[in-house]
Amino acid sequence: MDTWDAITSRRDVREFEDRPLAEEELERILEAGRRAPSSRNWQPWDFVLVTDRKQLGELAKVWRGAGHVGRSAATIAVILAHSDDAGERERAQYDIGQATMAMQIAAADLGIGSGHSAVGDQDQARAVLGLPKDRYAAYLIPLGYPADRPLEPIKKPDRRTFAEVVHRGRW
Amino acid sequence: MDTWDAITSRRDVREFEDRPLAEEELERILEAGRRAPSSRNWQPWDFVLVTDRKQLGELAKVWRGAGHVGRSAATIAVILAHSDDAGERERAQYDIGQATMAMQIAAADLGIGSGHSAVGDQDQARAVLGLPKDRYAAYLIPLGYPADRPLEPIKKPDRRTFAEVVHRGRW
Repeated sequence: MDTWDAITSRRDVREFEDRPLAEEELERILEAGRRAPSSRNWQPWDFVLVTDRKQLGELAKVWRGAGHVGRSAATIAVILAHSDDAGERERAQYDIGQATMAMQIAAADLGIGSGHSAVGDQDQARAVLGLPKDRYAAYLIPLGYPADRPLEPIKKPDRRTFAEVVHRGRW
Repeated sequence: MDTWDAITSRRDVREFEDRPLAEEELERILEAGRRAPSSRNWQPWDFVLVTDRKQLGELAKVWRGAGHVGRSAATIAVILAHSDDAGERERAQYDIGQATMAMQIAAADLGIGSGHSAVGDQDQARAVLGLPKDRYAAYLIPLGYPADRPLEPIKKPDRRTFAEVVHRGRW
């Protein structure tokens, strides 16, 4: 798909077809995340790929807004190390934001929808994902073919206007 | 350009050709950022677009690693509101990470390089960009045609291996 079509087709998808994703598709999406840039190339992330139906159901319990994880064909859990340094935590969030977006655009390019979710219950996430004590699940990225309608470029996204967001030269 | 080529061609570019970017190119890059997803669609960002050579030179002084801002054809300053809430600050960082990556992929699609920079001296950034007191410049995204070589898909990115980063089912 053309890049601009992929960028403008990406939307929050929360209802998925009951159809698995091919291994090559999953690898491509994960590879997009692996390649993301990060502060001094520290690559603070790990990705846990979950495709087992029962495990997805357990993972869906980590947050009231994560129900669609249980209906996804696959979910990528984005894992970070705990840190006592506020600046380091913020840098890590920025960098996994970049990795997340790369994965979502790579998914959209394949016609695959995504709708990421925060994680509330870290004990549940740790149990389901087998995380070491020094790690936590920062976000979940559920994936699957959209059940409502295929991805296609969105003409009028629900966003602040261009003129409101973009300042020329000075604020 | 094909999406996968754009994703795999993006790299950190810090030397730019002395050639301006077309208005349509800048608008497309900014539009990619405007469309990025965010927590409850709060869209915490503003973007200040700087193309004036003298202003770029002043903006380059905000950080020891921002010298390439002065050599860029254009730089997008990503602006956030100050917040006393650590959770809100982290969410904002994640979301501008997503917007940053969308802009960088949109730029790569046009053959335009980018190499974002942190901001150290907020007083300097505020003066150059005319920011209100309650805002700060979180990151700068310098843009321009690469002076070294054109963007093309990178076969072996300088990253941790796929097998190291990706865990199947459980950590």
